Amino acid sequence: MPKSVRRKLEQVLTAGWRDSRSRGWFQQHWLDLPFELGRRLAPLIGAGADDVIFCDNTSINLFKMLAAALALRSERRFILTESANFGTDLYIAEALCERSGGRHAMRYAADAVDLSAMIDSETAVVYLSLVDYRDSRRHDLAAITRAAHAQGALVVWDLSHAAGAVAIDLLTADVDFAVGCGYKYLCGGPGAPAFLFVHPRWQQDAVSIIPGWMGHADMLAFEPTYRPAAGIRRFLTGTSPVLANTIALAALEIWAEIEPAALFAKHRGLSELLVQLIDRELAPFGAKLASPRDYDQRGGHIALAVNNAETVLDQLLQRGVQCSLRKPQLIRFGLAPLGLRYVDVWDGIATIKDILQHPH
Amino acid sequence: MPKSVRRKLEQVLTAGWRDSRSRGWFQQHWLDLPFELGRRLAPLIGAGADDVIFCDNTSINLFKMLAAALALRSERRFILTESANFGTDLYIAEALCERSGGRHAMRYAADAVDLSAMIDSETAVVYLSLVDYRDSRRHDLAAITRAAHAQGALVVWDLSHAAGAVAIDLLTADVDFAVGCGYKYLCGGPGAPAFLFVHPRWQQDAVSIIPGWMGHADMLAFEPTYRPAAGIRRFLTGTSPVLANTIALAALEIWAEIEPAALFAKHRGLSELLVQLIDRELAPFGAKLASPRDYDQRGGHIALAVNNAETVLDQLLQRGVQCSLRKPQLIRFGLAPLGLRYVDVWDGIATIKDILQHPH
Repeated sequence: MPKSVRRKLEQVLTAGWRDSRSRGWFQQHWLDLPFELGRRLAPLIGAGADDVIFCDNTSINLFKMLAAALALRSERRFILTESANFGTDLYIAEALCERSGGRHAMRYAADAVDLSAMIDSETAVVYLSLVDYRDSRRHDLAAITRAAHAQGALVVWDLSHAAGAVAIDLLTADVDFAVGCGYKYLCGGPGAPAFLFVHPRWQQDAVSIIPGWMGHADMLAFEPTYRPAAGIRRFLTGTSPVLANTIALAALEIWAEIEPAALFAKHRGLSELLVQLIDRELAPFGAKLASPRDYDQRGGHIALAVNNAETVLDQLLQRGVQCSLRKPQLIRFGLAPLGLRYVDVWDGIATIKDILQHPH
Repeated sequence: MPKSVRRKLEQVLTAGWRDSRSRGWFQQHWLDLPFELGRRLAPLIGAGADDVIFCDNTSINLFKMLAAALALRSERRFILTESANFGTDLYIAEALCERSGGRHAMRYAADAVDLSAMIDSETAVVYLSLVDYRDSRRHDLAAITRAAHAQGALVVWDLSHAAGAVAIDLLTADVDFAVGCGYKYLCGGPGAPAFLFVHPRWQQDAVSIIPGWMGHADMLAFEPTYRPAAGIRRFLTGTSPVLANTIALAALEIWAEIEPAALFAKHRGLSELLVQLIDRELAPFGAKLASPRDYDQRGGHIALAVNNAETVLDQLLQRGVQCSLRKPQLIRFGLAPLGLRYVDVWDGIATIKDILQHPH
């Protein structure tokens, strides 16, 4: 939790809610928050300042971005994804196919297979999570995007387990659309708003499937007919959550003082140290690295495969080691480079080792 | 702003974000907040405890509810609304029609006409805002719902300028679907989450157009295929904004101590006093009631038509009278029965009168 959260909340409560009331949208610049947050995230994901906004949640942003991409490739049939993609990503895509009147359908790559070879002239959109939420396997963003474009397909990337942890360069990789959540490595707080990215070349042609008044060209004219706002603003829906945006800003302001390259180097250092210590300290007790061994093939977290994972997890949490379970046997350690220290990795490993050495 | 907001925020920041982190979803009952909020709102809108949830914003909830209603009447062509409906309501409906492959189209009633006569066997959904956001004209919820059902059509009501101010009885009126915002008379704070209502008879058949993981039958099983949760939970999308929900709960907890009938009687008293005083004190200076004279035809606010409305508004705001402008000449006064006193109405009228008597 950023230290400035309380100060910012007090500001939005008193100068905002209490004193400005609905005028806070202007006097307190609440309308600008989705863009201000986007501008601050942009350098971390290699986007332009005007190519990113924060709004809604990841599921809704996936829905908007995938629908927009499909509309730009309406003559093509398939959404190519992998069956290992996160649930909500798959549900959203299947729902859009079902409502397409037979125009679009899903095509699934098997888990951990290079799907570049499956991209063809019938592929409308390649639709993937950059990082697997279980084992942290990371796709090659640039290579897959290149392979998609070579076949005339578009890409929609979900950056949820990557943004704020590993280096991403959306414009250099020429990514069309992307989304991600704000509450993992971006430290935006519980249920923080999500973000979405639209490449500048699509910002005038991409259409929002949920054309709300906040995305209208002249929001306060209350026109009876929708006219999309210029640029990425059109992907706003309705009223945005001011307090959630304010808290997310407390986090994203921190990044302004940090060189992205230094942050990603820190993450790499933490991640490689953890792999080294897992091999050396935990392998003798039957715990194994369940994430790729090559750093460039990993995302923000590292997964450890252990027996009796649920019991081990409970003990770790009780002893202050932050982690989470993906059944049946994966324990995930999120390596947030902003706050986590190398000594925390050493201490965490010592605790895991102690638990494995002395099972209940 | 409810007095308990700061205490609740401190709880969610320390016991939640700082200490529980992602386990807060369970330990701090964050997953239950959308339902807890719904249960507390239910008595104010005549809904059952399990028929309402808070999530997303009004535009997105309109999108979900209208899409669900259309799917239940897919063989019928028209969405019947009025051209005076709020912008976002119209944009959402037009977008759903455009994407229906010619199946659905809009039909517009003229402003302030009884549209019951326009409902016919081709009408899929009657889709209205209960209260007009400009002049506060209120439809007859029960009569229009009855007329729609008589023709086999469904209804989707937007309760945004009504909920928490005037008596609404959704189940007695047999309403199919409804939505509303949380930041007006419900005092949920800037950008508060919105609510949605689904009649129990549709809760097993209505389908969400945005099937996110939070609406899955077994959210934490991470199944590759979507199975809708039982009941209204299926209309959740992705991760919900915990801090916004917490603040909205601070407001909705207040209602637990209040008899809805007493609240609505208070609103009626405030509203009728304001009309009386407008007629007596302001009419001589050219300001006129722009809302219906009959209380049952008015919503939460009262609109006053004045010359030089923009100048008058600025002076009112400077002198502490809360109001808002709808161009060219309407000034709106929201009568929040929870906090507003009769003396505030008297004082406000005295201030308006003074400004009208002494124009700059």
